[in-house]
Amino acid sequence: MSLLVIGTVAFDAIETPFGKTDKIIGGAAPYISLAASYFTPNINLVAVVGDDFPQNYIELLQNHGVNTEGLQIKKGEKSFFWAGKYHEDLNSRDTLVTELNVLADFDPIIPKSYQDCKVVMLGNLTPTIQRTVIERMERRPQLIVMDTMNFWMNIAWDELMKTISMVDVLSINDSEARQLSGEYSLVKAANKILKMGPKYLIIKKGEHGALLFGEEQMFFAPALPLEEVFDPTGAGDTFAGGFVGYLCKSEIINFGAMKRAVIYGSTLGSFCVEKFGTTGIINLSATQVEERAKKFMDLVSVSW
Amino acid sequence: MSLLVIGTVAFDAIETPFGKTDKIIGGAAPYISLAASYFTPNINLVAVVGDDFPQNYIELLQNHGVNTEGLQIKKGEKSFFWAGKYHEDLNSRDTLVTELNVLADFDPIIPKSYQDCKVVMLGNLTPTIQRTVIERMERRPQLIVMDTMNFWMNIAWDELMKTISMVDVLSINDSEARQLSGEYSLVKAANKILKMGPKYLIIKKGEHGALLFGEEQMFFAPALPLEEVFDPTGAGDTFAGGFVGYLCKSEIINFGAMKRAVIYGSTLGSFCVEKFGTTGIINLSATQVEERAKKFMDLVSVSW
Repeated sequence: MSLLVIGTVAFDAIETPFGKTDKIIGGAAPYISLAASYFTPNINLVAVVGDDFPQNYIELLQNHGVNTEGLQIKKGEKSFFWAGKYHEDLNSRDTLVTELNVLADFDPIIPKSYQDCKVVMLGNLTPTIQRTVIERMERRPQLIVMDTMNFWMNIAWDELMKTISMVDVLSINDSEARQLSGEYSLVKAANKILKMGPKYLIIKKGEHGALLFGEEQMFFAPALPLEEVFDPTGAGDTFAGGFVGYLCKSEIINFGAMKRAVIYGSTLGSFCVEKFGTTGIINLSATQVEERAKKFMDLVSVSW
Repeated sequence: MSLLVIGTVAFDAIETPFGKTDKIIGGAAPYISLAASYFTPNINLVAVVGDDFPQNYIELLQNHGVNTEGLQIKKGEKSFFWAGKYHEDLNSRDTLVTELNVLADFDPIIPKSYQDCKVVMLGNLTPTIQRTVIERMERRPQLIVMDTMNFWMNIAWDELMKTISMVDVLSINDSEARQLSGEYSLVKAANKILKMGPKYLIIKKGEHGALLFGEEQMFFAPALPLEEVFDPTGAGDTFAGGFVGYLCKSEIINFGAMKRAVIYGSTLGSFCVEKFGTTGIINLSATQVEERAKKFMDLVSVSW
């Protein structure tokens, strides 16, 4: 099934205890699109950059099968820029710079050729822009997956609730699930959030794995304990990209397929954190992906 | 296989956001023994209490098949007493009272009838006392499992290292594994700790599950997300009790059996935290245990 991805396309400058980068390609949409590209050939990007954004970064996406017709390039404007520094344990970070630039008045235009997309992945953005994308689709897609974050819970609650009510799958982390629901127990939090509209909820727990709720069922995908974690940037977006990419490939939308999709999301996420930025997910073979996914399955496999 | 359990037997007074208890039965050994009792009928306790310890608590253990011949009752002395108060999220707690009392000069005497025990579970205690138990066994047991904590890493490092070098399985939590190894990555931490002597290492991650390392393999058992967690006291000891209890029942000591044992340890731990103190693990049916264990398996089950 064809995939429409909306999200930021940005410059990131990242510092971790293991090193730092200059401005490199970042933002939710590249991580989502690159991860999804290992599963589906039909990826359609809606995003905005300035004319400072390097052509070779756009070609990187195109070389992974990403249709960039919906990527607006604003003449004389600068791309979104984020700089952050991770703490020693990589579990928290300080944002050093956020320059919205072109993102400040981003109006997501859906090219005619994208209107048939069956799956829409709403990367983290203002909930209003996310909803605009849904409203500008002439037919309701078969599946709408939404990623968001605590920031929007703090400053745009009503808009966020409206958008959440329109999607099929919501993907957030554990502290965000607690904030959104007002419940500490993730089981209770999930029950409340599933009443807000989504049929499925993914709760990401970082190095502790991910939970999937829906259809009165619960599933847990572990994270693979790794020897080295270099850079967690984009891990959540990469997870989302692997998740929707796999669903596009499988062409099945039910709890069973989503369980497998969560495993593949986690699989791509594990490659992402092993290297800086997108480096870990731009050059994988199908065999590497399958072998890594098998490690996730073996990790919890028991014979009785 | 017969099980020898050594550990504290104590009064606990517990306060959580959901309520508080008077002095109730606590300490590592009751949690371990009660949990193990769902799997094996032959449990032999080595511990010490004062003559203030109620007969009905001793009978509670006996009614679960625990041989209390090795429970020393010190005339005119008082039992170990611990009081603690949990914070709102139950992930941390303050110790309000620690009265060692009889524990201060505990000399673990192994009754003759315990000498045939095949499995020894060393509950958390000073590493010196734990080692004394090993040394007082006339034959080396088939399996020695050791639980310990960061406290002994801080004040008795050399003694701890000596005892660790003598055991087959070490059970600690994630922050303790990091402290013991000096490695943040749990994979690297496990590699280092397995060079200290133990053939197997369990890293408990509380609400995030447990990892098992050994035989060049790695296994992860999830924690079951629960609607209600009332009291985490004893969860780690209960886990250890379910773990060794299952191994005694299975009579197999290898990685495959330990994987199943970790699931049963987690299963018993999940019952423990649902009620105050030992309440959640004193009255379970075999069916309840099996049904709960199945929930752990279903939680990670995927069909491909």
